[in-house]
Amino acid sequence: MHFNNEELGQLEDRYRAKLINSLSGFKSANLIGTTDGKGNHNLAIVSSVFHIGANPPLVGMIMRPHTVTRDTLENILELGEYTINQVNADIWKQSHQTSARYEQLVSEFTEAGLTPEWLDGVKAPFVAESRLKYSLLLRESQTLEINGTVLVIGEINNVLVEDDVIANDGYIDIEALETVAVSGLDSYHVTNRLGRLSYAKPDKKPDVID
Amino acid sequence: MHFNNEELGQLEDRYRAKLINSLSGFKSANLIGTTDGKGNHNLAIVSSVFHIGANPPLVGMIMRPHTVTRDTLENILELGEYTINQVNADIWKQSHQTSARYEQLVSEFTEAGLTPEWLDGVKAPFVAESRLKYSLLLRESQTLEINGTVLVIGEINNVLVEDDVIANDGYIDIEALETVAVSGLDSYHVTNRLGRLSYAKPDKKPDVID
Repeated sequence: MHFNNEELGQLEDRYRAKLINSLSGFKSANLIGTTDGKGNHNLAIVSSVFHIGANPPLVGMIMRPHTVTRDTLENILELGEYTINQVNADIWKQSHQTSARYEQLVSEFTEAGLTPEWLDGVKAPFVAESRLKYSLLLRESQTLEINGTVLVIGEINNVLVEDDVIANDGYIDIEALETVAVSGLDSYHVTNRLGRLSYAKPDKKPDVID
Repeated sequence: MHFNNEELGQLEDRYRAKLINSLSGFKSANLIGTTDGKGNHNLAIVSSVFHIGANPPLVGMIMRPHTVTRDTLENILELGEYTINQVNADIWKQSHQTSARYEQLVSEFTEAGLTPEWLDGVKAPFVAESRLKYSLLLRESQTLEINGTVLVIGEINNVLVEDDVIANDGYIDIEALETVAVSGLDSYHVTNRLGRLSYAKPDKKPDVID
């Protein structure tokens, strides 16, 4: 099946949103924990978190300023610190529920049935039920003029993870943590490892190392 | 287990790279097809493709200008068009092999055993073995000063997909296509759907719609 440029432009809006959201491939599922500094906490699921670099440790995400994640974005810009918490198979439905359009002062933690967890020196709440989570200091935010979304870049300053899932080389077995992946706007998946592959070299085929 | 800022800074480089690359969650696996306009084709696997918006249909990716994907980035900037091809379980090893450091004029298609496929009017090659692929016109590229990586944004102008995997609402079942997900730098995974969830509303729990 072939959609050309003209045909893509003529698709009904919701149909196009679901189709286009399927194209980038599997997406990460993460909960963004923030607070407004006055005791009001926000929690929002996002599927747009991506790796930018390891040294310094930088993670980016795309936020839509006029949608349900508006409060989350404002909190990040105001407090300068936030948490990212991987969604796992025990909390996928609760996590999805955080995307409902609650009033500004309602905590999605309470409504979705997830528990705020605090670490000394970190201003934003973690999600107790998440098995791999980290806090970040805001380093950059910029509006992408091409469609008005906001690119938020943070530097990781604390990582909390179950220690029996870290391999000798530093790889974290997020499949063992039952971390979920997202496809499209609303489909959640657990994974089965095909294998880890050795560093690719021109003169040989990759070996399975796991 | 808790790594604080200081401990993260003291990790050995390769260990930190593998650890930090595990934090964003599952990543998409895509092959970027390009050409230099003189008949030399490049193919590079990237795990940093992400959705930016559906209307206009925009996809972003993070490129490292001084690494093995240098030729791919140069081709994109020069020709202004490229393809993104989802990696599936039949070609995960060949796809990984494209990350080897081949000489500039060597085609990763040939070396990895993948087949270039052409569509009238599109300057860059697709991957015949990929079951969901699309071409993009370059819309923006900017160097992120924070670490020197390059954000590349393209607008989708052609989509090629098997038509029996598109749901009535536009969702594409990329699990049925055996699209793989990546964790860390080198681990490949197929998926098992937990379910699709209905649009979240404040007054009710989400329903499984699939």
